[in-house]
Amino acid sequence: MQISLTELADHLGAELLGDGDITITGVATLKDATSGEIAFLANESYRKQLSDSQASAVIVRPDDAESVAGSALVCDNPYLAFARTTHLFDNRSPAEVGVHPTAVIADSAVVGADCRIAANVVIGEHVELGEGCEIGPGTVIGDHCVLGTQCHLNANVTLYHDVTLGERVRIHSGTVIGADGFGFAPDQGRWVKIMQLGGVRIGNDVEIGANSCVDRGALGDTIIGDNVILDNHVQIAHNVELGDGTAAAAQAGVAGSTRLGKHCTLAGNAGVAGHLELCDGVFVAPKTVISKSITQAGGYATGTAQMPINEWRKSATRFRQLDSMARRIKDLEKQLKD
Amino acid sequence: MQISLTELADHLGAELLGDGDITITGVATLKDATSGEIAFLANESYRKQLSDSQASAVIVRPDDAESVAGSALVCDNPYLAFARTTHLFDNRSPAEVGVHPTAVIADSAVVGADCRIAANVVIGEHVELGEGCEIGPGTVIGDHCVLGTQCHLNANVTLYHDVTLGERVRIHSGTVIGADGFGFAPDQGRWVKIMQLGGVRIGNDVEIGANSCVDRGALGDTIIGDNVILDNHVQIAHNVELGDGTAAAAQAGVAGSTRLGKHCTLAGNAGVAGHLELCDGVFVAPKTVISKSITQAGGYATGTAQMPINEWRKSATRFRQLDSMARRIKDLEKQLKD
Amino acid sequence: MQISLTELADHLGAELLGDGDITITGVATLKDATSGEIAFLANESYRKQLSDSQASAVIVRPDDAESVAGSALVCDNPYLAFARTTHLFDNRSPAEVGVHPTAVIADSAVVGADCRIAANVVIGEHVELGEGCEIGPGTVIGDHCVLGTQCHLNANVTLYHDVTLGERVRIHSGTVIGADGFGFAPDQGRWVKIMQLGGVRIGNDVEIGANSCVDRGALGDTIIGDNVILDNHVQIAHNVELGDGTAAAAQAGVAGSTRLGKHCTLAGNAGVAGHLELCDGVFVAPKTVISKSITQAGGYATGTAQMPINEWRKSATRFRQLDSMARRIKDLEKQLKD
Repeated sequence: MQISLTELADHLGAELLGDGDITITGVATLKDATSGEIAFLANESYRKQLSDSQASAVIVRPDDAESVAGSALVCDNPYLAFARTTHLFDNRSPAEVGVHPTAVIADSAVVGADCRIAANVVIGEHVELGEGCEIGPGTVIGDHCVLGTQCHLNANVTLYHDVTLGERVRIHSGTVIGADGFGFAPDQGRWVKIMQLGGVRIGNDVEIGANSCVDRGALGDTIIGDNVILDNHVQIAHNVELGDGTAAAAQAGVAGSTRLGKHCTLAGNAGVAGHLELCDGVFVAPKTVISKSITQAGGYATGTAQMPINEWRKSATRFRQLDSMARRIKDLEKQLKD
Repeated sequence: MQISLTELADHLGAELLGDGDITITGVATLKDATSGEIAFLANESYRKQLSDSQASAVIVRPDDAESVAGSALVCDNPYLAFARTTHLFDNRSPAEVGVHPTAVIADSAVVGADCRIAANVVIGEHVELGEGCEIGPGTVIGDHCVLGTQCHLNANVTLYHDVTLGERVRIHSGTVIGADGFGFAPDQGRWVKIMQLGGVRIGNDVEIGANSCVDRGALGDTIIGDNVILDNHVQIAHNVELGDGTAAAAQAGVAGSTRLGKHCTLAGNAGVAGHLELCDGVFVAPKTVISKSITQAGGYATGTAQMPINEWRKSATRFRQLDSMARRIKDLEKQLKD
Repeated sequence: MQISLTELADHLGAELLGDGDITITGVATLKDATSGEIAFLANESYRKQLSDSQASAVIVRPDDAESVAGSALVCDNPYLAFARTTHLFDNRSPAEVGVHPTAVIADSAVVGADCRIAANVVIGEHVELGEGCEIGPGTVIGDHCVLGTQCHLNANVTLYHDVTLGERVRIHSGTVIGADGFGFAPDQGRWVKIMQLGGVRIGNDVEIGANSCVDRGALGDTIIGDNVILDNHVQIAHNVELGDGTAAAAQAGVAGSTRLGKHCTLAGNAGVAGHLELCDGVFVAPKTVISKSITQAGGYATGTAQMPINEWRKSATRFRQLDSMARRIKDLEKQLKD
């Protein structure tokens, strides 16, 4: 891939400062960029790398334009411009259009035009694949699943039966959609399984990372809204609903029947208990446990902050005495008042 | 599936109040049920939905029977009755009995009657499958594994060698049983692997969710008792023993050589350190770390409770000062006494 | 496998006390060992099992040699000697050398001598496998991957394109290497994907457990040093760098662009935030969140210690009041001074 800086500026709708004839052959960080590559400055903490960068051009905000030694592409959102630039330089070899002879596809399945079905894929009865879907090796799609156009399931993904994906959904390897929710009724000391009769419905432009799980509903569906993004090792339990644009970082989890609003963010390993409602725009800090519903947008946290382990032991010991400490303070206040 | 309310009452051993001739065609929540569907009331917080429900009948406790507008099935444990009802309405298409031509099965393996072996299954040497097992597409079963009757491994499950399952064990996709435990000896700054020579033994009526791991023993076996239920993303390390009826919610973990008694419950992302013993009937709260053995049944927790992040920062800062705060309180008490 | 105690002493470089003609047929714990088996004492808490052990011989430190009733192998590091002994008694049936007829291997791929390629393996274009690699059933290796000699990928592993492994790398089932990092730019309330253009580079003598993830770099590679050991369910995000000999227990996670030094240890479910640097020799306690860079070796922790849940509730309530408690103490001190 080669593009002139002028063409790239046009593509991004950015203002060009400098030499538009430069040929851009790749994208890199300010620190690692070499001649021919374009870099970007979005995070202020990397600003000090601007002067030493060997990049042929840098994408910057108007305020930073003067600090660029070479050529610059100036725009209001350099991080977005960078994201769009990465699409131009994606170097992955595309899979071939067609169905690999080792794929096992049920007669009742319908495969849309221009699909790419890799080796050892297994597709169940009455499945519908939209146009231009790509299904990686070893991926299994259960009966009655429906995939919209241009979905991309990587290798070794598993979809159980009755899973519906919108358009342009990407799912990474090892991820399991539609496994049974964790539902059991206690019966005199024994667990009796609750059959999970619902399915999973996923919106458009969703991406789900590797080794994540979205369980099927017990009754009714588990629902993932449009443009939701989930990282690796994420757990979405049965009958959860995630609003449009919500994001969950790696190892986050949402327990059964909980509803998250739009544009919520779960940081890494954040957890939300079951049967709760979180309004739009909630941010949950890393490893935080949410145990009550939230009606006001903003950030929430649990836990304590990082300490050397010997000091931590002292604080942890005192934490057990907190109630007594509080009572003793009250007592002192009373004594002093008297 | 269709069943009259009278027949369903008989099946569940419930008392029928109302019209026994109603045909029940499905099961749903109080909120979502429509005509022809049966709902249930088990969790008091949903009681307010009783009056507006469109369900044709509701499974309730005797106390709630009067509040049901239409027909009711009355029993002491509506949640259990609901669980049993879901088995009647399970709509999954059963896999075909037989072995798919793409399955690769070692000559020395023994496959019981009425098994359902899907596409691309790989079964190793000397494996024994009991009657009526169902093995999903892409699942791999290592040498010398033994599965009891009516086990169900979903798609893309992996069993290493020497894994023994009891009867009616269900394992969901992506789960790995019998991978090496995490055992290494330090040798002058380098890790030397300890070969994991044991296996895994799993009891009857066990269910393991998706993308979970149960490691093989280093010496001797990792042991999962009867009727244990594990959710998704659960980690069971080498030589752990889980007592009968113990349950672990998603992202829980138990470190090496720890033994849990019977009927313990690990909530979501709870963790138990290695080489510990937990007695019967221990409940571990969400995201709690258990670092000492427990000899008394009951609930245990670590961590703090959910706060707006700005307030949390203040408390987290003070947590570092807890030891000093405790000393200052003591000092004040001494001064005041003097 | 059978070996005389004299031969084993020679192999381990240990001093033999007792009968060198004993035939050792297996290795076991002090508690479970029976006649013919060798046990070891490395952890002091198991010392009380020494007198009752039925082991034919025990590997011990010089200080413990007198306490062994039968024969002993004496050395400075019994745990290491035990590790080396397990390699002698590894009972796994080796896979056959050769390529299973169901494997799908691109014409441009190069498979080294003495490789063992199992059923349903899929190997992409321009892949290079070193001599003596073993690839388990259902494993998928993407285009342009390079594996050094004697790598062992178990069943159902997934390598995306452009992943490079050193020599003697072991990867357990369900693990995904090279999936896209979690990179998205916000654009007026929508997430725009950042294509992940980098790869993954893994050193020599690395072991990665089951169902773990190492994401590919966004720009440039994610890098795992030599002799790194990762347990199950571990998350390594894009552009992370792990120094030689670093270890991460199950469910640990490292967020994007963070660098860990050499010989760091992440305990179970420890988490490290993104864009940080940890120096060599850092230990992170279980379920701890690291949110700031660390420049001094040693242990670090967050969280609180295990409590009965009713007592915990009191402390958790008081935690919310910590700032007010601290102010009241200061106030009391001031009043008392006045």
